[in-house]
Amino acid sequence: MSEVPVEDVLAVHQLYGRQSHAIDSGQAARWAATFTPDGEFVSPSYPEPEAGTAALTAFAERFHAGCVESGERLRHVVSTVEVRSGQSEDTLRALAYLQIVGTPEGGAPRLHRLTVLDDELVRTAEGWRVRRRTVHREP
Amino acid sequence: MSEVPVEDVLAVHQLYGRQSHAIDSGQAARWAATFTPDGEFVSPSYPEPEAGTAALTAFAERFHAGCVESGERLRHVVSTVEVRSGQSEDTLRALAYLQIVGTPEGGAPRLHRLTVLDDELVRTAEGWRVRRRTVHREP
Amino acid sequence: MSEVPVEDVLAVHQLYGRQSHAIDSGQAARWAATFTPDGEFVSPSYPEPEAGTAALTAFAERFHAGCVESGERLRHVVSTVEVRSGQSEDTLRALAYLQIVGTPEGGAPRLHRLTVLDDELVRTAEGWRVRRRTVHREP
Repeated sequence: MSEVPVEDVLAVHQLYGRQSHAIDSGQAARWAATFTPDGEFVSPSYPEPEAGTAALTAFAERFHAGCVESGERLRHVVSTVEVRSGQSEDTLRALAYLQIVGTPEGGAPRLHRLTVLDDELVRTAEGWRVRRRTVHREP
Repeated sequence: MSEVPVEDVLAVHQLYGRQSHAIDSGQAARWAATFTPDGEFVSPSYPEPEAGTAALTAFAERFHAGCVESGERLRHVVSTVEVRSGQSEDTLRALAYLQIVGTPEGGAPRLHRLTVLDDELVRTAEGWRVRRRTVHREP
Repeated sequence: MSEVPVEDVLAVHQLYGRQSHAIDSGQAARWAATFTPDGEFVSPSYPEPEAGTAALTAFAERFHAGCVESGERLRHVVSTVEVRSGQSEDTLRALAYLQIVGTPEGGAPRLHRLTVLDDELVRTAEGWRVRRRTVHREP
């Protein structure tokens, strides 16, 4: 198994940190910019895939608006990251666990779900970006 | 957005690991030493900020004594770290999620709360240290 | 405290990611290969230690078979990693938190337990491997 360079592994950790803090604080454009312009987000939690910056931005906006409306703060807690070589030097595959934790105003936190992030990443002039994220309930 | 060097990002990950394992195992001085000598800890979970090594050490001692007394083991589970450039080469800003998980003796674990760590870090001769930690329930 | 090189810290993060995704998806041999051939796994959750590739592989197979049988998907969520120098240049000690989260088919996830991983790692020709893992409920 070929070793993924240190810089690339850490860039993915940073990307995942940025993603969570962006979407959870309502920075929808910042979240969408962690994907390529044609990036795809495929999840069983939502009826159909989202693709492209505009759709991803709208998705993140709806997510945050839903939190505001419900009064429950949701957090994307990401851990257990494994970065693997991709099919070329300019692609990577990464796996991670995502815990969605919600805290209602004045209430106790609750783990809503635990999913697996399975990402295809591509190197761009701005750094690594997600080209396709597949969220699994079951791997 | 300027890239934070790999060494610095990883130093923050290490610092956060050290912090949690120190405070959770009762090593109060070790925990306090992850802050600068004038470091500040500001949290809505506690009535007022703690500042300086002596106060931080006492804070960590009280935390651990509380666990021993209650028979509930508390853990600081840190993840979803994002390290950002600071206002100079010798400062960083870092965000992370903190899950406080408690396990009573012989009982099932419980997620007490999920908070956001928002840190201002400064480079010292001993490595990166927290100058000011602000804990948010809501970002 | 001597600084652990960036490459080595990150190799441990990668190893932990690989371990979790391997055992949770039923890749028992892949999981066992993250230990040295004589690697040991010592946990209070199980009646006796497991040692050596064959026993570790069988352990991981039983783990996954148990999930399939029960219909509850278990995940090893690892975070809060701290990598420390070992007693030589070719050994490391690492601490991490492990959350075992289970999701029954069609049900809500539940945190089963939170343990501390306390690992002795050794450098091999294939990279860092776990020589001895001790799982603690209480440190």
